Formats: sequence, structure tokens, C-alpha cells
Amino acid sequence: MEKGCRFGTHRVLEPQGVLPQAAVKIDNTMTIRANEILVDVTALNIDSASFRQLEEEAGHDMEKVKAKILAIVSQRGKMQNPVTGSGGMLMGKVAKIGEDLKGKIDLQEGDALATLVSLSLTPLKIEEIKGIKPEIDRVEVKAQAILFESGLYAKLPADLPENLVLAALDVAGAPAQTAKLVKPGDRVLILGAGGKSGMMCCYEAMKRVGPTGWVVAADRGEASRDLLLKNGFCHAYFAEDATKPVAVLEKALEANHQEEYDIAINVVNVQNTEMSTILPVKDKGIVYFFSMATSFTKAALGAEGVGKDVTMVIGNGYTKGHAEITLQELRESPKLREIFERLYL
Amino acid sequence: MEKGCRFGTHRVLEPQGVLPQAAVKIDNTMTIRANEILVDVTALNIDSASFRQLEEEAGHDMEKVKAKILAIVSQRGKMQNPVTGSGGMLMGKVAKIGEDLKGKIDLQEGDALATLVSLSLTPLKIEEIKGIKPEIDRVEVKAQAILFESGLYAKLPADLPENLVLAALDVAGAPAQTAKLVKPGDRVLILGAGGKSGMMCCYEAMKRVGPTGWVVAADRGEASRDLLLKNGFCHAYFAEDATKPVAVLEKALEANHQEEYDIAINVVNVQNTEMSTILPVKDKGIVYFFSMATSFTKAALGAEGVGKDVTMVIGNGYTKGHAEITLQELRESPKLREIFERLYL
Ligand SMILES: NC(=O)c1ccc[n+]([C@@H]2O[C@H](COP(=O)([O-])OP(=O)(O)OC[C@H]3O[C@@H](n4cnc5c(N)ncnc54)[C@H](OP(=O)(O)O)[C@@H]3O)[C@@H](O)[C@H]2O)c1
Ligand SMILES: NC(=O)c1ccc[n+]([C@@H]2O[C@H](COP(=O)([O-])OP(=O)(O)OC[C@H]3O[C@@H](n4cnc5c(N)ncnc54)[C@H](OP(=O)(O)O)[C@@H]3O)[C@@H](O)[C@H]2O)c1
Repeated sequence: MEKGCRFGTHRVLEPQGVLPQAAVKIDNTMTIRANEILVDVTALNIDSASFRQLEEEAGHDMEKVKAKILAIVSQRGKMQNPVTGSGGMLMGKVAKIGEDLKGKIDLQEGDALATLVSLSLTPLKIEEIKGIKPEIDRVEVKAQAILFESGLYAKLPADLPENLVLAALDVAGAPAQTAKLVKPGDRVLILGAGGKSGMMCCYEAMKRVGPTGWVVAADRGEASRDLLLKNGFCHAYFAEDATKPVAVLEKALEANHQEEYDIAINVVNVQNTEMSTILPVKDKGIVYFFSMATSFTKAALGAEGVGKDVTMVIGNGYTKGHAEITLQELRESPKLREIFERLYL
Repeated sequence: MEKGCRFGTHRVLEPQGVLPQAAVKIDNTMTIRANEILVDVTALNIDSASFRQLEEEAGHDMEKVKAKILAIVSQRGKMQNPVTGSGGMLMGKVAKIGEDLKGKIDLQEGDALATLVSLSLTPLKIEEIKGIKPEIDRVEVKAQAILFESGLYAKLPADLPENLVLAALDVAGAPAQTAKLVKPGDRVLILGAGGKSGMMCCYEAMKRVGPTGWVVAADRGEASRDLLLKNGFCHAYFAEDATKPVAVLEKALEANHQEEYDIAINVVNVQNTEMSTILPVKDKGIVYFFSMATSFTKAALGAEGVGKDVTMVIGNGYTKGHAEITLQELRESPKLREIFERLYL
């Protein structure tokens, strides 16, 4: 077997010189290289922005959605929505592992897995679409896909329901980065704390700060106050619109004995929340932006404008062991698991 | 004297709840609060994007540019171009220091200074425009301005020419962050190394890595190779288009004995260079984005797509001592100073 580029560039057909995600067409021949993995795919979880666009374009006619998905995949060699640019993830069973990887990774042929890299870069060939479940953006298929050497995946564990695993893995980066970032004794502010990644970040921050730390959760309204406080997911809570930096600063300091924070974590899903995340943090502190609505220039120029010597980090969706760290939260905390089962299944 | 908010929010007139930079109108009354500084302004250095817009709108008629500047400042209370949103910086002499700051900061009444926060958030009142020098985007004025407690400034040193100081301070964040970031023995990659901040970052990285480190400079073409290598600003150089991640990765590894880097610093000024910065860095390494053309989502999703566990940092224009660190480079290195005098005066 020939070896391919670990990032899959050997499958890029056009334009030349880019990575598979940026390519408009990739090679979806289902013969693997020595460092690739072949997957028998059972379902696609289409990214929600992409699914909404497909549904609307098709006037909610699922037969038309099916035809459109087949057309995209046969044209591009991957399920990347040409309008939204986004993909999703897939589930399936390992069919074949290239000889360079065999025995060196924690996968065996027959293992059930979900990919943690986007469908927007994953070679895919669909034989048949068996059904669509629009409520959960799920497309059931008979298909095959290729995972590159750099591709991320999670083995589906036997002890947790599949849909719970998928809901949690969707935001795996945020709690795992929180776990690595937050140190004992830290004072931590979490904006957007009532959301899916927010709750997991709160839980993880509480665990990491230990008895000497202080975790303050904030969200737009009062809806999450009881949930977070009563379950012990934070020490204090305040409600404020995260696009109002001055108001957030005041309430954040009040909730932290008038002191600045060591770390602020932004998991809000709206624009213009950069300054609310930066202002409450002390000099040399850390500002972690997970929100995909973060603007690079607003953060860079904003911190300079107020003379804040803070380290601002771009939330990387991947960190080593992110899937394990995230699923471990659900095993450890029956309360968190119960909330996730109630809200996200 | 009454005390104001350290970020100047007491001067925001509309809309309420935002910081001075986001405000459309601020109070430019020239009576200072206890934690403000009054400056007699002699010149404005208009941000180059803003100046170009003003010039074009005025059909290159400098009298019309003058009138437009006066109109903007009287309407907004600050010199923030309504089209580009950007400002610039100012030069002047300290006229009065609020009683809360007096003796506590390194400024005295009469000191010459340049502001390091944008004109887009600085209360300004212009009495008269004396002249315009379009070649250097300079507007000579009789005016007054207010610096907030959080406002950044640099005292103009007596030993360096004013224009050299301004050219260097323009990019002060990048070399200062490099100084704090790069450790002895590090292998450092600098993309856009032939540019203004690139050269300063190279110089600083060479100093910090010491005899056991390795600094690789890269730029689009061959123009900077000799300049950087002959002056000892890097150990190795390669030319490649930073929007071509696969080609950059290959050349970057080749220039570093086929090893990945501890740190990559991006000071390119074009879009789509995120992956070229991320790919050459080892797991747990640092990716520093200074380029204002950086896309938050391209960096976040791109690193996940290739499974890179790197810490990606948003280049903060400010870090403690950034002006001193930057000017010190010009004092220390006659070669760097000579290049800056040749290229940027
Ligand atoms: N880089 C990564 O790996 C990574 C990982 C996880 C998440 N993310 C990103 O993080 C963000 C959050 O994801 P999620 O799945 O946790 O979303 P989510 O469940 O919708 O949570 C967002 C939270 O922010 C709150 N919020 C919205 N507008 C607000 C405002 N103006 N002020 C204060 N709070 C406000 C929401 O409150 P309401 O419910 O009241 O609107 C909600 O509680 C998304 O942008 C996502 O893409 C990135
Ligand atoms: N956050 C901060 O505090 C901070 C501080 C300093 C700078 N910056 C930002 O950093 C960037 C650089 O600033 P600067 O003043 O140093 O600009 P500059 O002098 O124009 O330098 C940019 C360099 O990038 C090179 N370049 C352009 N396109 C390229 C490509 N496709 N491949 C490889 N190299 C390419 C340029 O080469 P050519 O000359 O051949 O085009 C030039 O050498 C700007 O976006 C600036 O806003 C931010």
C-alpha cells in the first residue's frame, strides 16, 4: 500500500495546493492508502446550519433533500454544503485499517465510531439514502468514507446511549480546554454558561478550581440560575446581556468580591461579546473565546484600546483526549447527564 | 475633582452601555477628571486606511480633507472615520495630569508623548488645522485631547528621531509579544518576516532563542532573503506564498531539519494564511496570529480539521512595556535602525 499525506492532501483534486476542507472536489475512491481508514457509514449528522439551508431550498420536501445530498457528494466527493460551507459528522463501523496504522491506534476493524472531523473534508461515497430524520438533522445511509491519518474520531462507548454521546461530542473542545486551562484556586468567569458547552465548562471549571477557587456563571437571563447553582455547577451567577460590556464588568466584579478574574471563557453564540469577556480579566490573565461569533479584529483592537495585557486564545475544537474528557463528565455527574438527556435528546 | 471610569465610559454620549471606541458620540469637554490626562496636541497621524478614504472622497483637495476632519471631530467628539471606523494616533505635550494620577505615573506636565490607543476612542477638540502632509498621513493641529486612565502612551525619547519612533511604535505589539513568548532553544517560524513587524519579530526571536534555538524567516518572494540572513535576523529563510499551506509546510520542515516548530508567528497582511501557520507547529506548540487579516473561524475549525493540538493566540496590540521593548531594538541594533530609517522614514 502506498502512503498518503497525513492531512489527506493526496486526495485534493481542485484547486491544487489547498487542504481537503478548502478543496471544491476531492477524490472519493474507496481504496485506502497505508495510513487511511475505511469506514462503513450508517448515518450522517448534518451540521444544523447546512441542514436548515437544504430543507429550505427543497421547500421541506425530503425527497428533494435526498437528491440534493446525493448530488453534492457525487460532485464534491464529500458532504460539504456549497452555500454554508459546513459539513457535520458521521457514524459507522471500521471496515479496514491501513497497514501503517494497524496496531498503532486504539481502533480495530468492526469498532463503532463517530468522526470528530468535519464531513466538509471527509471523502464519502453514498450508495443509498435509507431515511432522513429532520428533527435531529440525521441522514441514514449505506455509504463508505475515508479517515485520514490526522482525522479525529471517537469510539462509541457501550455504556452511554449513542445520541447522548453525539450531543456531548458536538461541543467536546470547550470542556476539554477548560479542564487543561483552569488551575486550582483560579477565579473563572463563564459567559453563555447556560448553554450546552457552557454547562460542561462550568462543571469542569468547578472540578478544576477546587475548594480555593471561584466560578461565576453568567447568561442572558434568569432561566439558568437555579439549574447551575442548585446543581453545584458554579459558585455565583448573574444575568446580563453579554453585548453590554460595562454592565457585564460591573456585575462580574460584584460577583467576585470586586476582584478581576484569572480566566474568562466565552461560549456565547452571538456577536459583539469580545469586550465583555476581556474587561473582567486581570492583567496577565487568560481570555478564552470558543464562540464562533468571535471577531479576531474586535478582540485584538479592543484589548489594545483599553490597555489590557491579557492572553486571548482562539478556542481550538481539538485538544488531546477531548472526547474522553467530555464523555467522562457525563459518567461522573448523574446531574449533568440527566440535564443533557432532558435537553438534548 | 471627580473620578471617571478608567475606560472612559463616563464620556460616552451615545449609544449607552458601550465603550468609547464603539460609541458614535463622546463628550469632548476639555475639563479633566481626577484620573484623566489633558494633552496639548500638535499632530494627528491618521490611520492610513482612513486617510486614503478621506483623500479620495475629497478628490485629493486638501482644503476639503481639512473641512471633513473638522466636521467629524465636532460631530463625534473624536477623530474616527465613519466609513473605515479607524482612527490613528496623536502627538503632543502633557498639559495637565489629574490629581489621582499625578506622581503615580511616569509622566510629568510638559512631557512630549505619542498616544498608543486609537484616535477612535480619544476625546479630541480641534481649534485649528495648520497643515496636512499627505505623504505621511500627518495633520498638524492646535488641539486638545483627553487620555483615560487605561489609555496607553509613549514618552517621546530624546535620543531617537520622532518619525522613527512613530514608525516603530506602529507595530509595537508584535516584537514585544515575541520577546515574552520565545524561550531559549525554541524553534521559531515567522511568516511575513520581510515586513515591518516581521523584521522586528525576527530580531527579537533571534535574541530570545539564544545559541540553542533556530529562527526560520519566510516571505512571499526572495527580496528579503539577503537582508534578513546577512544581518543575522534569522538562521534560515525560504520564499513561499503563505496562502499555500502544503507548500509552506514542506519548505518549513525542510528549513528546520524536518522537525516541527515550537512557535509560529504570523505577521503577513493577506487573508487565508491560517493553515500555513498552524501546520508546521508541533502538538502543544504555540501559533501567534498578529495579522489583522486572520479569521477566527478559519483558525478554530482549521486546527480541528487537521487534529492539531496547538494553542492559538490572538495578537494583542498591547503588552506591558511594549513601547520600551520596541524602541530598545532600534537602540540596540544599528543594522535594524539603519533599515528602518531607509524604509520607513
Ligand atoms: N471551538 C470549539 O470547539 C467549540 C466548542 C463548543 C462550542 N463552540 C461554540 O461556542 C458557542 C456556544 O455553543 P453551544 O452549543 O454551547 O450554544 P448554546 O447551547 O446555544 O449556548 C449559547 C448560550 O449563550 C447564551 N447567550 C446568547 N446570547 C447571549 C447574550 N446576548 N448574552 C448572554 N448570553 C447569551 C444563550 O442563552 P439563550 O439560550 O438565552 O439564548 C446560551 O445559553 C457556539 O458559537 C459554538 O460554535 C465552539
Ligand atoms: N495586533 C498587533 O498589535 C499588530 C502589531 C503589528 C502588526 N500587526 C498586523 O500584522 C500585519 C503585518 O503588519 P506590517 O506592518 O508588518 O505589514 P507589512 O510591512 O506590509 O508586512 C507584511 C509582510 O507579509 C508579506 N506577505 C504578503 N502577502 C504574502 C503572502 N501571500 N505570502 C507570504 N508573505 C506575504 C509581505 O510581503 P510583500 O512586501 O512582498 O507583500 C510583507 O513582507 C498587519 O495585518 C498588521 O495589522 C498587528
